Amino acid sequence: MTGSATEQTAYDVIVIGAGPVGEVCADRVHRGGLSVALVERRLFGGECSYYACSPSKALLRPIHATHASNRVEGSEGARIEVSGVLHRRDIWINNLDDSGQIGWAEHAGLVPLRGEARITGERTVEVDGTTYRAAHAVVVATGSSPAVPNLPGLRDAAPWTNIEATTSHTVPERLVVLGGGVVACELATVYAALGSQVTIVEMAPRLLGRTEDFAGEAVRKALEEAGVTILLDAKAERVERPTPGGPVTLHVAGGRAVEGDELLCAVGRTPNSRDLGLDAVGAALNDQGYLSVDERMTVPGVRTPDGAPWLYGVGDVVGIALLTHMGKYQARACGDLIAARAAGRDEDDPAFVPYATRLGSPQVVFTDPEVSAVGLTASEAQERGIRTRVVDVPMDAAAGAGLQAEGYQGQARIVVDEDRGVIVGCTFVGQDVAELVHAATIAVVGEVPLTRLWHAVPSFPTMSEIWLRLLEEYGL
Amino acid sequence: MTGSATEQTAYDVIVIGAGPVGEVCADRVHRGGLSVALVERRLFGGECSYYACSPSKALLRPIHATHASNRVEGSEGARIEVSGVLHRRDIWINNLDDSGQIGWAEHAGLVPLRGEARITGERTVEVDGTTYRAAHAVVVATGSSPAVPNLPGLRDAAPWTNIEATTSHTVPERLVVLGGGVVACELATVYAALGSQVTIVEMAPRLLGRTEDFAGEAVRKALEEAGVTILLDAKAERVERPTPGGPVTLHVAGGRAVEGDELLCAVGRTPNSRDLGLDAVGAALNDQGYLSVDERMTVPGVRTPDGAPWLYGVGDVVGIALLTHMGKYQARACGDLIAARAAGRDEDDPAFVPYATRLGSPQVVFTDPEVSAVGLTASEAQERGIRTRVVDVPMDAAAGAGLQAEGYQGQARIVVDEDRGVIVGCTFVGQDVAELVHAATIAVVGEVPLTRLWHAVPSFPTMSEIWLRLLEEYGL
Repeated sequence: MTGSATEQTAYDVIVIGAGPVGEVCADRVHRGGLSVALVERRLFGGECSYYACSPSKALLRPIHATHASNRVEGSEGARIEVSGVLHRRDIWINNLDDSGQIGWAEHAGLVPLRGEARITGERTVEVDGTTYRAAHAVVVATGSSPAVPNLPGLRDAAPWTNIEATTSHTVPERLVVLGGGVVACELATVYAALGSQVTIVEMAPRLLGRTEDFAGEAVRKALEEAGVTILLDAKAERVERPTPGGPVTLHVAGGRAVEGDELLCAVGRTPNSRDLGLDAVGAALNDQGYLSVDERMTVPGVRTPDGAPWLYGVGDVVGIALLTHMGKYQARACGDLIAARAAGRDEDDPAFVPYATRLGSPQVVFTDPEVSAVGLTASEAQERGIRTRVVDVPMDAAAGAGLQAEGYQGQARIVVDEDRGVIVGCTFVGQDVAELVHAATIAVVGEVPLTRLWHAVPSFPTMSEIWLRLLEEYGL
Repeated sequence: MTGSATEQTAYDVIVIGAGPVGEVCADRVHRGGLSVALVERRLFGGECSYYACSPSKALLRPIHATHASNRVEGSEGARIEVSGVLHRRDIWINNLDDSGQIGWAEHAGLVPLRGEARITGERTVEVDGTTYRAAHAVVVATGSSPAVPNLPGLRDAAPWTNIEATTSHTVPERLVVLGGGVVACELATVYAALGSQVTIVEMAPRLLGRTEDFAGEAVRKALEEAGVTILLDAKAERVERPTPGGPVTLHVAGGRAVEGDELLCAVGRTPNSRDLGLDAVGAALNDQGYLSVDERMTVPGVRTPDGAPWLYGVGDVVGIALLTHMGKYQARACGDLIAARAAGRDEDDPAFVPYATRLGSPQVVFTDPEVSAVGLTASEAQERGIRTRVVDVPMDAAAGAGLQAEGYQGQARIVVDEDRGVIVGCTFVGQDVAELVHAATIAVVGEVPLTRLWHAVPSFPTMSEIWLRLLEEYGL
C-alpha cells in the first residue's frame, strides 16, 4: 500500500452507525475488553433519538397527560400549550446537537468517528478517505431511512417524512398523511392535538395493519373523534405541488383529491444497506435490501482466511424487527458474542442468540388510546399452525381501568397456545396501557404456564387486574 | 327441634361476609354447582367497595392526573376541583347504596341474606334468629375493621377512621393523622391536595414501615413538599376533644401537642372474628384474634362426625395478607376446593393452595409518588436466610420515565436470590409506577430465571425499560 495517502489505524472492532443500536453494540464490545471505533455519518444518537421515538414521545406525552387529566372528574382546565410542547421536544432532541452523545461515547471509552463509512475489504473500513483495520469484527448498524415510494410527483413535492414531522417548529394548518401505520397514527395524533386539520390516506382497509384488528379500529375511531379525516382502501395515485412550500394535493384513485399545507409520507422504512461495500465482501442483501444475518447476527459466508466470521449486522438494517428496543437487544447479544469470540470463549451461551424476536417483539403505539402488544396476533398464531384459543375482555372489566378515566374504553386479548398452556400473544388497547405489556412480555418470553400465571395476583385496584379477568374468562 | 320458632333452610354453602372476598368465594362455589347463601350485616360489597380501596382510589386519581398534567411542559392549567373529586367518590361508592351489589349476587345465582350471622353448631348458622344449615361448608369472610387503640381520650374524641375519611363530604381545615402506614399516607395525600393542613403523627422512625426504606423516605419527602407536617418517632399519649365536633388535640410524648379539626386514626386493622361463635365449634383464633387456617384456607380440627372439614376462612379475618386482591385469591382457591370436595373430586390440584402469598403479596400504595412492590424486601429476604443481591437503579435511568414528567424522580430495586438466580422481591417508587409491578409479580411467582428475563425486552420508550437497567446493573 505504499503510495497510498491513507493512514491505517487499527481497532479491535469497528461499528458503523451510531444510533442506539450501534452505541449499545459498541459499548458491550468495549465492556468485553476490546477497543472500538464508532462511525456515524450524521448524528450520533441516530434516527431514534432525533427523528423518531424520542421526539414522538416527547410530543405525545403532554397531549396524553392533558387528555388524561380532563377525562377525570375532579380535575379541570388542562390544556395543550403548543409552544411548550414543541420546546419540550427540542429539549429531548437537544436541538439536534449530538455533542452530548459524542461525549457519552468518549466517556464510555469508544472512539467516535464522523464520516461516511465503506467496507473496502476484509475487516477494512474506509471513512471519508481514511482506512481503518478491525482486528476482530465490523458491525453494520446503519439503520433505516423513511421510504418514499415512486408515486408520480411525490418526491418533487418535497414531502415531510418522520424527520420533518418530529422536528418541525410550525404546525401546518392542514396536514395530509400518506400511510396508516404506527408513524402515521402517532404523528396524526400529535398534529391533530396541536391544531392541524389532518387527513390520513391509507391504501389498506384498516389502520395499524400489523396489530389485532380491534386495535386499528379503536385508533381509527379515536382519531376521527379528534377530528382527523381517514380515507381507507384509498390508493394514492399522484401528488401535485405547483409552488414549492405551497399547498400540496394528493390524488386518490376514484377521483378524490386531498389538499394540505404539508404532506407527510409515512409508508415504511428502507434499509441503509447501499453504498457500504457489502457486496464486495460477499455479504448478501435480501429482496427488500436488508442485510442477511444468521441467528447470532453474523453475516454468513463472510470469513477471514482462517475461517473466522468478522462481519455482523444489527438493528433495522437486518430487517428482523424494526424497533429500537429489539435492535438494542440484538446489539447486546452481538457485542457480547464478538467479545467472547475475540477472547476464544465459548460461543454457545444462549445469551448470544436474541431468540425472543422469534416469539414476537413487544411494541407500544403511543396513540390515544395506546396500543401495546407482544408476541403473535391471533391470525399470526393460526398461520403458524398453533392450536390457539383467543380470549377477549373489555378493559373496564378491571375496576382500575374505570378509575383511571371516566368512560374508560379499551380491550385486552390473550392468544393461548392450547397444546403448551402458555400465552403466545397479548394485546392491550386503551388509555395508559403502555406499561401493561411488559408483564405480558415476561409471560410470553418466560413461557410461564397459565396454571402458574393464575398465582400471579394483580393488585387491586390497578388496571393490571385485567389479567385476572383474562384468566377467569379463559376458565381458570 | 319442634317447638322452635326458627325455620331451617338448607344451602350447600353459607358464606359469612359479603365483601369482595366473600362475594368471590360464593361465586366460585356457585360456579362449581352448589347453592350458596351470602350473609352480610352491613353493606354488600364490603369495606373495600365503600370505605377503603375504591373510594381512596376514586379520590386519588383526579389528584394524580392533575399533578401529572402539570408536571409536563406543554400541558398547562390543570387544577383540582374539590366538589368534583368528592362527587366522583360518591359515584364510585354508589352513595353507600348496596342494591347494585345485591342485584349482582342474585344475578350470579347467590342468595343474599342481610343480618348478623353466628355459627351455632356444626354447619349451622343463625342469622338474626333464623337458623340455616349448610350441607357442605361454612366460610368465614368477615374481614377486618379499623383498629382504634386504647389511647386515653381517643375513643371519646370520636376519631375518623378510614370509614369517615373516605366518605366525608367536607374537607377539614386541619387534619391530624395518627399512623404512618398505607392508609395514613394515602389519605394524607388526598386531604393535603383537597386543601387541609395535614399533620401525620407516627410512632415509628419512618413512614410505610413494611416497604423498603427508600419508599417511605420518598413518600415522606413528597408529602412534606405538599405541605404535610410529619412527626416521626412520635408516640401519641392522649387525645382531648372538649367539645364534640370541635377542635381535637393529640398530645405527643415530649410535650408537643397537635391540634386539628378532625383526627384520623389509621393505625391498623382488627379482625372481625368475635361474636361469630367460632370458639363454640372449636375454631382457634391466634394472639391477634385472627382465625387460624391451614394452607387450603380450611380451619383445622373442625370436622363433621364423618371427619370431613366444613369450616373455612378467607380474607382479612385470617390475617395472612390484609389486601383485597390476596383475599380474593384465597377466595378463588377456597371456593374451588369446596366445590371439589363436595363433588368428591381430587383435592390435590395446586390451584387449591394460594401459595403465592408465601412469596410475598403485591401491593400498590397510591401516594404521589406511588409505591408498588411484590415479594420480599431486602431485609425480609435476608431474614429468611436467602443469599441475596440487591440491585438499585434510579427510575430516570429509563428514558420513558424522564418522558413521563419533567424532573421525574424515583427508584427501582430488585432483590435477587443468588442461589436460584431468580428475583424474590421488587419495589418501584415514582409517579405512575402502579402498573409496573405486575411484570415483577409474574417474574417472582413464575420464578423466571434472570437469564430468561434478559430476553424479555421492554419496549422503548416505556418506563418498563427500567427492567433493562436493573438487569444491566446486575451484570447481564
